Amino acid sequence: MNSEREVKGFASDNNSGVHPEIMNQLLSVNSGHVLGYGSDIYTEEAEKIFRQIFGKDTKVYFVFNGTAANVLGITGVTNSWDSVITAFTSHIEQDECGAVEKFAGCKVLSVDTSDGKLTTSMLEKHMHGFGFEHHSQPKVISVTQATEMGTVYSPEEIKELADYAHSKGMLLHMDGARIANAAVSLGCSFREFTTDAGVDVLSFGGTKNGMMYGEAVCFLKARLSSEFKYIRKQGMQLASKMRFIAAQYIAYFKNNLWHNLASHSNKMAQILYQKIIKIDGVKVTQPVQANGVFVILPPEVASRLQKKYFFYTWNETINEYRLMTSWDTTPEEIFDFTELLKQEMSKFLRTKNV
Amino acid sequence: MNSEREVKGFASDNNSGVHPEIMNQLLSVNSGHVLGYGSDIYTEEAEKIFRQIFGKDTKVYFVFNGTAANVLGITGVTNSWDSVITAFTSHIEQDECGAVEKFAGCKVLSVDTSDGKLTTSMLEKHMHGFGFEHHSQPKVISVTQATEMGTVYSPEEIKELADYAHSKGMLLHMDGARIANAAVSLGCSFREFTTDAGVDVLSFGGTKNGMMYGEAVCFLKARLSSEFKYIRKQGMQLASKMRFIAAQYIAYFKNNLWHNLASHSNKMAQILYQKIIKIDGVKVTQPVQANGVFVILPPEVASRLQKKYFFYTWNETINEYRLMTSWDTTPEEIFDFTELLKQEMSKFLRTKNV
Amino acid sequence: MNSEREVKGFASDNNSGVHPEIMNQLLSVNSGHVLGYGSDIYTEEAEKIFRQIFGKDTKVYFVFNGTAANVLGITGVTNSWDSVITAFTSHIEQDECGAVEKFAGCKVLSVDTSDGKLTTSMLEKHMHGFGFEHHSQPKVISVTQATEMGTVYSPEEIKELADYAHSKGMLLHMDGARIANAAVSLGCSFREFTTDAGVDVLSFGGTKNGMMYGEAVCFLKARLSSEFKYIRKQGMQLASKMRFIAAQYIAYFKNNLWHNLASHSNKMAQILYQKIIKIDGVKVTQPVQANGVFVILPPEVASRLQKKYFFYTWNETINEYRLMTSWDTTPEEIFDFTELLKQEMSKFLRTKNV
Amino acid sequence: MNSEREVKGFASDNNSGVHPEIMNQLLSVNSGHVLGYGSDIYTEEAEKIFRQIFGKDTKVYFVFNGTAANVLGITGVTNSWDSVITAFTSHIEQDECGAVEKFAGCKVLSVDTSDGKLTTSMLEKHMHGFGFEHHSQPKVISVTQATEMGTVYSPEEIKELADYAHSKGMLLHMDGARIANAAVSLGCSFREFTTDAGVDVLSFGGTKNGMMYGEAVCFLKARLSSEFKYIRKQGMQLASKMRFIAAQYIAYFKNNLWHNLASHSNKMAQILYQKIIKIDGVKVTQPVQANGVFVILPPEVASRLQKKYFFYTWNETINEYRLMTSWDTTPEEIFDFTELLKQEMSKFLRTKNV
Repeated sequence: MNSEREVKGFASDNNSGVHPEIMNQLLSVNSGHVLGYGSDIYTEEAEKIFRQIFGKDTKVYFVFNGTAANVLGITGVTNSWDSVITAFTSHIEQDECGAVEKFAGCKVLSVDTSDGKLTTSMLEKHMHGFGFEHHSQPKVISVTQATEMGTVYSPEEIKELADYAHSKGMLLHMDGARIANAAVSLGCSFREFTTDAGVDVLSFGGTKNGMMYGEAVCFLKARLSSEFKYIRKQGMQLASKMRFIAAQYIAYFKNNLWHNLASHSNKMAQILYQKIIKIDGVKVTQPVQANGVFVILPPEVASRLQKKYFFYTWNETINEYRLMTSWDTTPEEIFDFTELLKQEMSKFLRTKNV
Repeated sequence: MNSEREVKGFASDNNSGVHPEIMNQLLSVNSGHVLGYGSDIYTEEAEKIFRQIFGKDTKVYFVFNGTAANVLGITGVTNSWDSVITAFTSHIEQDECGAVEKFAGCKVLSVDTSDGKLTTSMLEKHMHGFGFEHHSQPKVISVTQATEMGTVYSPEEIKELADYAHSKGMLLHMDGARIANAAVSLGCSFREFTTDAGVDVLSFGGTKNGMMYGEAVCFLKARLSSEFKYIRKQGMQLASKMRFIAAQYIAYFKNNLWHNLASHSNKMAQILYQKIIKIDGVKVTQPVQANGVFVILPPEVASRLQKKYFFYTWNETINEYRLMTSWDTTPEEIFDFTELLKQEMSKFLRTKNV
Repeated sequence: MNSEREVKGFASDNNSGVHPEIMNQLLSVNSGHVLGYGSDIYTEEAEKIFRQIFGKDTKVYFVFNGTAANVLGITGVTNSWDSVITAFTSHIEQDECGAVEKFAGCKVLSVDTSDGKLTTSMLEKHMHGFGFEHHSQPKVISVTQATEMGTVYSPEEIKELADYAHSKGMLLHMDGARIANAAVSLGCSFREFTTDAGVDVLSFGGTKNGMMYGEAVCFLKARLSSEFKYIRKQGMQLASKMRFIAAQYIAYFKNNLWHNLASHSNKMAQILYQKIIKIDGVKVTQPVQANGVFVILPPEVASRLQKKYFFYTWNETINEYRLMTSWDTTPEEIFDFTELLKQEMSKFLRTKNV
Repeated sequence: MNSEREVKGFASDNNSGVHPEIMNQLLSVNSGHVLGYGSDIYTEEAEKIFRQIFGKDTKVYFVFNGTAANVLGITGVTNSWDSVITAFTSHIEQDECGAVEKFAGCKVLSVDTSDGKLTTSMLEKHMHGFGFEHHSQPKVISVTQATEMGTVYSPEEIKELADYAHSKGMLLHMDGARIANAAVSLGCSFREFTTDAGVDVLSFGGTKNGMMYGEAVCFLKARLSSEFKYIRKQGMQLASKMRFIAAQYIAYFKNNLWHNLASHSNKMAQILYQKIIKIDGVKVTQPVQANGVFVILPPEVASRLQKKYFFYTWNETINEYRLMTSWDTTPEEIFDFTELLKQEMSKFLRTKNV
């Protein structure tokens, strides 16, 4: 590799590194001994910040990654004979290799959506068999905020889903791997579209927005977490040197770092989007509300672009590709990329039209 | 907390922080984008180092922590109807909250030992029912090196266990959470008491010896790992920003950092041991071969000492306590601690003898 | 309960009792001692019959019930990181309380169908992510024959699904809880639409067609069953007095008992169907190919009928009800029931039309 | 097989058939339709009998076999991070292929005993780590009554274990696969050594004492069973034609059939024991309190006897064999067998002494 420049692209926000302020915090907590497994002052401090953000009745447990946050959070509020209902495009349905089924033992039921967002009417299909022992009991509705399709639920939409869930004795889970991008997009506090909207369990992510590792399982009603310490340990997710996860969250919330980083990546996605819609022959398939842009491109154009700026195919059948921006994406990269796209598309269209 | 000094103690080697050279490596890989989930040049480099150390037929997979390394490594080579045989004091029996049973589905069978070390004759008790569907099939023998009791297997002892396992169609698993301390203690290369001695699967730890997080599941016969990538992902242990685990191992092996750190902590344990055996009324219960010293103390003495230098009770019934040294333990701390112990013991004995 | 008559109805074929010839066989094997767990001459004989029917390369394992046959058969050919694709209406998706997920650890993915039957084009939605560790690996396609909607796959349709599965490295599983009804409906031997059509694993049911208990997991390629004996035992499905399951199958196949019973129930369903379609205002929603008739009725009519002849609501949203016939359904019951239905419908329509 | 006689032996009480009165009851309930899955009058009646026997606060759930009764009963009262403590010789430790670990996810911890019976002092070894998330939480003590070694706990011994369990927030589980033999041996009602002695969950067996199949999970405190209906269904143990399990229990309790059968087999064991102790060179290793006799024999003698009367090797290392009597063992068989044993032993001793 000649330079870091060559590997930058639009593949995923987790291809970026760690923000310097988070790195500095790791250095600053690295002295002396502290007790392991979370009995240290940094973890205490980070937990306090979470309670300030999400409300006093919040219990937060740090784990290593987003898959674990989702799987263990769901395990914490389900029995193996329950079901979790989610969008077909959600991470727990598509990208966790069946970890919910393996660990929670639950059935995961999905519904098709156009934009990654659930609505109550979509859920009706799975709302039956309550109390009937032959049927997995509907127990959790799981939304992703921002969604895997780059869209964002409004606080009202979340509230409607939460009310619906609660009216049926169910709970609302939120996969917040990109929750910062959603908050910035909505111009809301985290609390407005989580605790205040009725969310019960939240996976609060940071790795895609400048952290190194470590996610937070937040029980927004503390009573739901009564046995979670055992679930985390048996789930292989209790970090011995916990201070280094806590430290990252301390830095993440200090001086609104999370907000600055997510604002930047969302803004980069908007610039990317504005450039792309002006290019003939490229179709954007989803509203751009967070830090992802979904486009339909001729595969030959895509593969030429991917050599310089890597990005992933999303849906082969319709030649859909996903472009993710991140906290360290630069306007120059976007200008260069879209210029290239423009040239390649124009070449492509010329050839086709001859 | 007035100063970091106050929280230093002998509780656990994981109460220490991260060695500066490892921190520096984290900084040095933190630029630009790299693909996530291990498809990056740092992971490639770290994997190469592991092959150099353990042999060409090694396949290494990084995970977040030691529990996961043990549980997933064992899952990789067992069916749910198999059993794993280990020492009663082993981490998988006592300290992983049943994670092997939950995730691998296996039965864990234990045997009592005096020093945490298995011998083939101890295993006979569980060697029956092969091919008999009513009985869990004995499949894995699991040893810890260095053991939870601060003792170390010789390469010959490992080889005997491996040969025994293989003669029965079983495999030998090693929990190497403190493998560096064992290597230093033996004056051996890692390979001499692992690959060359017949170990099949190894959890290679670093967190207790100066790393921040990240352990390595090493299949010393590559064919055993054919489906492990799915097990790691479904096991919630596939890191997105993998480069930061890989980087730590790169630094760990550079200039024999691992050796220097483990030598230091072993040496500190020897000094501690030498001081302690000279103190009247204190009994050391285990050979000191790595970085742990097990002592029997009057509880009132222990509790007074724990206020200044925290350490854990090991076995309440017999007033046994565990003292762990680490890469950052200083001779001054040991002198001060043992001086205090001497004074408290002398006070205690005086009171008793009146 | 005044008389047995009062509880007869169209609720389910499992509401019927045991055919006298099967009862007699239970009596006839009940003398002396035989070894337990299947090492007896009756089990040997029953296994031989299965090999005669399904081919020499068949391995059959008896279990207690249909849920177990499906769940363990699927467990036998999957890893926990695999997925099973099935119809939304299938028993493993709707009626086994998540047992596949709990026991196999697998993801179960469903597709909507109009008649309970899968076609290859429906499956495309789930055919991605092969070899990609983030995604559950598509491994099994599971069909029900006859389906839960009373329809039947032709041998050609089965073959197309099997070829499709095999072309992708997948397997075809058949839930044959009502396989006898399907065979009679098709006028085929069992083998023509199972082994010969490429089915890999089959749950062969008998309880719904005159047996007391006991189902058979048939591996139609013996090599697929190499570790199944452990799965059955760990799956809590190894019967100690196995001879009594085997005996039932011996009687079931003797003198084509199975065929006579299924012919009868299919014929009763046809009579029921012919009567019903002549009644104004009742809609039959599915082709009647086995022993179930699905109808749309006014709920008040349904509830009046259910007092005399119990049957289940299938889909509340559209007032759909399921009527099942069984080996002991009599033409008189059908005449009486349909007469009643006719009267109630006519009353209902009169009231409505006033 | 020329005659039934040839296969009779002392292998296991489950090698016997079904008692005629139980067969008759199966015939007598086999008419008309009843609802499936336990919503029938026979199940209602059987449940009522269980409440009469074990007390009003009893909830009983029928399952297919003893493994399921143990595994699901334990699952009903544990979380996956709990542990179950039992004798090394217990069925859940030795003979259920790890089903507790697989299905409940729990750790099973065992202790060595001389006679298959636990005492509170033996349990101390595992009584630690309460509330400590690293350690599986001790939750259930599981005893077998009568034990796998043919011994029987007194009501006082059971009570002591129950009190001990409850004092630690734990529960007492009883595997009653041979509970009838224990009751007869003690001359007690079932209730005296179960409900009244503090047992919380009981597997009530009948298959080894004249039934065909079907065991009962009895929660002796009804509140413990609140979610058990889902566990039974997801555990693949909900019988569709439940009336045939219920019917067997109805017959089993009618006219004290259970008592007559168990009295007989216990008596046969006593006769066997009295004959055997008079034979030179044969050692009986366990008190004979139920229907098993454990003996040490020269292997050549054993193998000659096994040709006529089959029985199992129990412990190869010490040439220990198990002889089980059952409800249909005859005094003639015992006379013949012991005569043979006497002859063979005498031949053996003569050869040895030459």
